[in-house]
Amino acid sequence: MIAVLKHGTTPDQTQHLIDWLKRMNLDVHVSEGSEITILGLIGDTSRVDMELLKSLEIVETVKRVSEPFKQANRKFHPKDTIVEVGDVRIGGGYFAMIAGPCSVESEEQIVGVAQAVKASGATILRGGAFKPRTSPYAFQGLKGEGLKLLLKAKEATGLPICTELMNINDLDLFTDVDIIQIGARNMQNFDLLKETGKCKTPILLKRGLANTFQELLMSAEYIMSEGNENVILCERGIRTFETYTRNTLDLSAVPALHELSHLPVVIDPSHATGKIKMIPSMAVAATAAGADGIMIEVHNNPACALCDGAQSLTPAQFDEVARKVMRVREAIL
Amino acid sequence: MIAVLKHGTTPDQTQHLIDWLKRMNLDVHVSEGSEITILGLIGDTSRVDMELLKSLEIVETVKRVSEPFKQANRKFHPKDTIVEVGDVRIGGGYFAMIAGPCSVESEEQIVGVAQAVKASGATILRGGAFKPRTSPYAFQGLKGEGLKLLLKAKEATGLPICTELMNINDLDLFTDVDIIQIGARNMQNFDLLKETGKCKTPILLKRGLANTFQELLMSAEYIMSEGNENVILCERGIRTFETYTRNTLDLSAVPALHELSHLPVVIDPSHATGKIKMIPSMAVAATAAGADGIMIEVHNNPACALCDGAQSLTPAQFDEVARKVMRVREAIL
Amino acid sequence: MIAVLKHGTTPDQTQHLIDWLKRMNLDVHVSEGSEITILGLIGDTSRVDMELLKSLEIVETVKRVSEPFKQANRKFHPKDTIVEVGDVRIGGGYFAMIAGPCSVESEEQIVGVAQAVKASGATILRGGAFKPRTSPYAFQGLKGEGLKLLLKAKEATGLPICTELMNINDLDLFTDVDIIQIGARNMQNFDLLKETGKCKTPILLKRGLANTFQELLMSAEYIMSEGNENVILCERGIRTFETYTRNTLDLSAVPALHELSHLPVVIDPSHATGKIKMIPSMAVAATAAGADGIMIEVHNNPACALCDGAQSLTPAQFDEVARKVMRVREAIL
Amino acid sequence: MIAVLKHGTTPDQTQHLIDWLKRMNLDVHVSEGSEITILGLIGDTSRVDMELLKSLEIVETVKRVSEPFKQANRKFHPKDTIVEVGDVRIGGGYFAMIAGPCSVESEEQIVGVAQAVKASGATILRGGAFKPRTSPYAFQGLKGEGLKLLLKAKEATGLPICTELMNINDLDLFTDVDIIQIGARNMQNFDLLKETGKCKTPILLKRGLANTFQELLMSAEYIMSEGNENVILCERGIRTFETYTRNTLDLSAVPALHELSHLPVVIDPSHATGKIKMIPSMAVAATAAGADGIMIEVHNNPACALCDGAQSLTPAQFDEVARKVMRVREAIL
Repeated sequence: MIAVLKHGTTPDQTQHLIDWLKRMNLDVHVSEGSEITILGLIGDTSRVDMELLKSLEIVETVKRVSEPFKQANRKFHPKDTIVEVGDVRIGGGYFAMIAGPCSVESEEQIVGVAQAVKASGATILRGGAFKPRTSPYAFQGLKGEGLKLLLKAKEATGLPICTELMNINDLDLFTDVDIIQIGARNMQNFDLLKETGKCKTPILLKRGLANTFQELLMSAEYIMSEGNENVILCERGIRTFETYTRNTLDLSAVPALHELSHLPVVIDPSHATGKIKMIPSMAVAATAAGADGIMIEVHNNPACALCDGAQSLTPAQFDEVARKVMRVREAIL
Repeated sequence: MIAVLKHGTTPDQTQHLIDWLKRMNLDVHVSEGSEITILGLIGDTSRVDMELLKSLEIVETVKRVSEPFKQANRKFHPKDTIVEVGDVRIGGGYFAMIAGPCSVESEEQIVGVAQAVKASGATILRGGAFKPRTSPYAFQGLKGEGLKLLLKAKEATGLPICTELMNINDLDLFTDVDIIQIGARNMQNFDLLKETGKCKTPILLKRGLANTFQELLMSAEYIMSEGNENVILCERGIRTFETYTRNTLDLSAVPALHELSHLPVVIDPSHATGKIKMIPSMAVAATAAGADGIMIEVHNNPACALCDGAQSLTPAQFDEVARKVMRVREAIL
Repeated sequence: MIAVLKHGTTPDQTQHLIDWLKRMNLDVHVSEGSEITILGLIGDTSRVDMELLKSLEIVETVKRVSEPFKQANRKFHPKDTIVEVGDVRIGGGYFAMIAGPCSVESEEQIVGVAQAVKASGATILRGGAFKPRTSPYAFQGLKGEGLKLLLKAKEATGLPICTELMNINDLDLFTDVDIIQIGARNMQNFDLLKETGKCKTPILLKRGLANTFQELLMSAEYIMSEGNENVILCERGIRTFETYTRNTLDLSAVPALHELSHLPVVIDPSHATGKIKMIPSMAVAATAAGADGIMIEVHNNPACALCDGAQSLTPAQFDEVARKVMRVREAIL
Repeated sequence: MIAVLKHGTTPDQTQHLIDWLKRMNLDVHVSEGSEITILGLIGDTSRVDMELLKSLEIVETVKRVSEPFKQANRKFHPKDTIVEVGDVRIGGGYFAMIAGPCSVESEEQIVGVAQAVKASGATILRGGAFKPRTSPYAFQGLKGEGLKLLLKAKEATGLPICTELMNINDLDLFTDVDIIQIGARNMQNFDLLKETGKCKTPILLKRGLANTFQELLMSAEYIMSEGNENVILCERGIRTFETYTRNTLDLSAVPALHELSHLPVVIDPSHATGKIKMIPSMAVAATAAGADGIMIEVHNNPACALCDGAQSLTPAQFDEVARKVMRVREAIL
């Protein structure tokens, strides 16, 4: 961390600040120029309140040199992380096609969709059992029963399953789940993150609607610092002023997160756009951008889906997207 | 809810849609014009997937006529809700001055700050025991021990206490807390909301960084639909493109939420601006805008605060703000 | 346009409103239900102040049924517009590769870059002569001299040229320019739009940093309503809370604008990301998304570029991107 | 400006960079620590491309120490600027109440409104003659005729007039205008800014919908660098994800701009909220925040206003707001 002192700071004031910084166990490297004095703070600066430092009368500006995340940082782990989910791999050149309904509704539905998407090339089945809904009056998911149906679909197809955990107390129910999803609204539910860090199950961590890449990586760090290194990052649209789409898909997340981190990056065009018509082009674009996977909502009967029907493809639509995605995968190799 | 059908929709298609809507227990009122056909959907439309309806080929546009929140809605509860916290009241003309440190750090600190802010006119003491921090490496609060120290400060000053709950499993520890705060990052942690809805303790619900007024009210609805009507809404800044301030204080929350809802509205200028120099003017502006209270971080020694020191006033600075706030309160009556 | 009246509106009030609307030359179609009354407004509603209508005491809500843009609207012009620039076509299946430096700096530079990008497959040369810069102290472009150098590069390579117009009074200098660019900051400089609508030169209209798709199309409408139908829409990143990238590329602009309008859509990943490392993946993604063209900054010596060096590819880097783009073009056909 | 070099940069690479910087006429002050090397760049860094520097392989991070605006900067001009408009003063403790209709519509209307707002305490009359409208089909203002009517209202009441300039070629018509307004959409129409910098008429410069405080000050700098120091800054709402209000009023602009600059700051709650009901509270809040003035739309018959009727107060409503504003002015002194 670097602090630039204002022109006119007295030697006494400078020394006073240096003493204060040293009491935080930092080494301070002073560089005095004719116009400005620069302090280089060396050591563990993660506990320094950068805003406080900036607010001091004699401080002109403060700049963090190193990123505050460590285990998720590519600098300290240059090689791509490959997350293994049964026989399926994600990252480091392995591409995951995750598909399935927004909500698990019945055995027939989830097994049927699972078989269909598998036939089209999906490698992982998604489906919500616990559903975060804006309204307390909306369908909240089949909960424990939904998890059981997902496992039946896994049994029927061999596809590993990915489903969302909302409540720290439900973790015991997720023992047989292959990928635990942390939703966008819970990206900074720190207790939930820490708890999932204590198991070894891969975690698919969705970016919050108003969270930066750095904050997403800090949340990954919460999981990793507890011991679970199997984190998959997922961009699913951010909130902007544009109202035509449900959210704005920030596809630059792919190159940005790949530069900052070694973790795999998956794109969810269904939640990002909220519109069936826009999902195919965004899925293909995500693939072209170099994503390590895509996550798409597929429902056997979108018009009757209990939630998010407007953004669910039919199996036939998904099949077409999957073919295009595979062609683009080959084109960019 | 109103659905406008596209020009050229056939009678068969229209009937098909009407039948589908009726199967959702809705009455459908049809109005055929020369150019467009309008369907008025009457009944409980809260479970209708508006986006799905909008995505149908024959539907031009859909519009929700009534707000999806009920118990928080001023339409069904025209009188201001007054939340009672011991002898203190908030809302309906009663103004709350909530002050205290970001984090509880020691008995000396919290009792000292409590006595100081009380002397300046504060009516409620705030202080964090469980702290949501972006980084897993930052100070996470004194937790249970912090709650005990808050209770000592309450004993010493008589001020009711307000502190944040992050984890559903910690609720038992909050029995003696006067106002339970749900932080911005947990505004859509629906399980946490439901659980706090089961107790009677007043809940101070902070608006999420990227959440609309309507979403804030839907989250209040989660609490109220479980039986707890003592909800206080709090605006603490939203995330925008501007980087000079920590967040952008959306002061229009005061008239907007007062129009939409009967619940009291409190403003937190400390988190909104993140800068000591800007807090006084924003606190006074919030008061002038008609807020039912303000919430301000005060620390006896901001330069040594374990978190958010840059946005904490000294007791002397708070005293000056409090005087100005009271003068403005009188001016707008 | 549809207006829903509040429950409890009296027949007199309703009639009063209808009379007022009729005085604006609108037909009003009334549909009375048991709970709500709906007014359908038929005729030219483009001059009705929707916000005013919404603010009336008796009005519950107002909804525009038809988009306010006409000539740019796909509904009234289902076939893709193909813009012709000399022998080059854009839109309707024709893909344009626009490349060149941010600023024209010298004959050697612009001719050199033009030859290089042409060799890699570029079909149009871009280059700024008049430069909009945030700071009055920054390099403002070679102006008229720059235009002359662009024409020399055109002569040398045969590539049509595209360059930005900032000032209505400079239009005369642009007679030989093949595509006039209107920059993001001038997207709502309505006098400039109208003036360019009076010529026949194709206009590349960039989306403003905080403008919606609809506003972009309304600005296209300004140009088209004056008689110039050769408008090319360009997405170049919007402003969001994320600071890692210069702007956030909203790639959903491709399917969204293609659905709303018949005009071609070009993507500029250079300004959107501001980072050399991210441009290739975003250029390829834009192609995969179905864009009608891409626009990329290329400089023979980025480290010495007078502006935007950080986002300029070298000719060698561009060559690699162009190859990938062409492979992806084939894959999605 | 400070550049931090990456760990592992060789002395040769460092020297190469220093040589490159020196060729831009900068002095470079090198500070080598054990872990990082810091370069302090001294001299005119306004032409250094910070993004380019940041993109170099060996550069870890770059930080601008001094703001890029000079004449608008409080550091070099600590005393508040007081703009004089006839007998009226704005800034440095002088408060302006600017009121009038969105558009000038007729002599009767503008003179009537002028007399009414003057009676309530307004000190400056506003009214649009040239109107920037999103749609080419909307009312565009009475133009030259509107200016004449404004001058009649000035004659009748003695109030100085403030009106918007959109087109550089109309400047001659504005000779008798007291304050020239540059609208939000033209905040970065740099040619227009430069041209208004050549006259001495006070300029009211509105913040763009997606522009930072720094960009607003850079635009002020465009005007000031041409010789016109009479710039009034105006916050009128920024664009965010919230759709309940037309825009989001960023009231922190008052303390922020006062800290960064010596120029007066005026708040426009009419455009910021777009809702009659919210204007009074926001006007009073702006005053409490320490604004140097407020700007409010007032129309004698809002229901018939040709534009922005939904956000226009009646003279009676304005009178009430004005009284409250004056009471709050006294309370905060």
